[in-house]
Amino acid sequence: MHPKELREKVRNGEFNGHTSGMCSDYVQANLVIVPQKYAFDFLLFAIRNPKSCPIIDVIEAGEIESALAPGSDIRRDIPQYYVYENGHLKEKLRDLSPIWKDDFVSFLIGCSFTFENQLLKENVSLKHIEQNKNVAMYITNMKTKQAGPFSGPVVVSMRPIKNELVQKAIDVTAQFPNMHGAPVHVGSPADIGIQEVSKPDFGEYVEVDEGETPVFWACGVTPQSVAIHSKIPYVITHAPGHMFVTDLKNDDFLKQQ
Amino acid sequence: MHPKELREKVRNGEFNGHTSGMCSDYVQANLVIVPQKYAFDFLLFAIRNPKSCPIIDVIEAGEIESALAPGSDIRRDIPQYYVYENGHLKEKLRDLSPIWKDDFVSFLIGCSFTFENQLLKENVSLKHIEQNKNVAMYITNMKTKQAGPFSGPVVVSMRPIKNELVQKAIDVTAQFPNMHGAPVHVGSPADIGIQEVSKPDFGEYVEVDEGETPVFWACGVTPQSVAIHSKIPYVITHAPGHMFVTDLKNDDFLKQQ
Repeated sequence: MHPKELREKVRNGEFNGHTSGMCSDYVQANLVIVPQKYAFDFLLFAIRNPKSCPIIDVIEAGEIESALAPGSDIRRDIPQYYVYENGHLKEKLRDLSPIWKDDFVSFLIGCSFTFENQLLKENVSLKHIEQNKNVAMYITNMKTKQAGPFSGPVVVSMRPIKNELVQKAIDVTAQFPNMHGAPVHVGSPADIGIQEVSKPDFGEYVEVDEGETPVFWACGVTPQSVAIHSKIPYVITHAPGHMFVTDLKNDDFLKQQ
Repeated sequence: MHPKELREKVRNGEFNGHTSGMCSDYVQANLVIVPQKYAFDFLLFAIRNPKSCPIIDVIEAGEIESALAPGSDIRRDIPQYYVYENGHLKEKLRDLSPIWKDDFVSFLIGCSFTFENQLLKENVSLKHIEQNKNVAMYITNMKTKQAGPFSGPVVVSMRPIKNELVQKAIDVTAQFPNMHGAPVHVGSPADIGIQEVSKPDFGEYVEVDEGETPVFWACGVTPQSVAIHSKIPYVITHAPGHMFVTDLKNDDFLKQQ
């Protein structure tokens, strides 16, 4: 399916599930929407923390179409949205039109599906995909660089990688500096403040077996988490796993870097 | 001289000249200051045009110190400032303190001194430096990507490079993606809308001799020019060649990428 077709099905209410594995040659994006008043600080937070918060498009106040998906409508083309008020989840919506305000600024943030696809192509197997689980995510003791009201810990995703493939996994993901890029940590979870690797803060644990190394990448949950906990009055995100699918091919994105 | 010492001399009025060639191991930066109202659009313009506008630090409203230069004062540590009102040069100042407003946001933008230094270290000679001239700069027919009131043509700098060293010059500068990076064009000036290469729009012409190729890099004059021509009421920049010298070493910056 072409992403345009998928977005139309979403918009018409014909599809409202996870987008994991769909249109797998195309770039999927995380979404964070904040009121214009906070947009400068959020953008500054993003450029100060590029590994956690790789911005791939910004839809300005008064606009609804992403440059990466002609004809798209950011209010309706994601299968599910979470609406937060003062840091609390207020509503889950399938269409933001009824609550849309002209001062909303939408940030599309790179997602690990892009580099996971490339890892698989290069024969680096990913156990959470084999086991059909969400990737395991952890709150670390690494701090993001603050901008205005936005600050907090770096959230990472962990993938067990066969020891002999760790360098390859680093090299492949380093080719995507705008999609989280190279790992932020390789090896001992305790080094980055993770006490119990079997108990992730989000997602599901995937066993690290003999002959495997836990490898940690900065995760797009970081900016979401930071936005939600910033105490600003209003933040909207995509629901976990329900991403915005762009018309940009993963390969094109790789070449752009 | 350490940059801290240079900045103190500037601040005390003991030095007010060009900074070209000074503290040559350290990163120098272009400056653009806009009122907070325009800061989001200017930052968005920068991330949409990273080759022309590589942001290396942002000093938020109400602040005067750059994270790249502890103890610095952006109002006083540059030898000369240009103040524009509604697109017209209104004043040249050596100290912004008397006109400083708490809503000013300062953007420090990467400068070609960093990569020129590396080119020289790698034995790629630069004729404008040998001839003690300003680099030649041209307004091209390439368009920047617009953000809010900010739009306009890409301005490039041109350096004649010996044919056999062109690939090396590309490779060396590509190592500095946050300092303009690889060239935007190699060869025929007419291809990017430059009709008379002997008549640069800014700086001084340096002859392209037999056996040399003109090589064009995106230039930090682009965001300055765009800010000034945006018709916003107030823009402050450094005076040409009078840069902000940071405590960051060129080599450290290279490694950060």
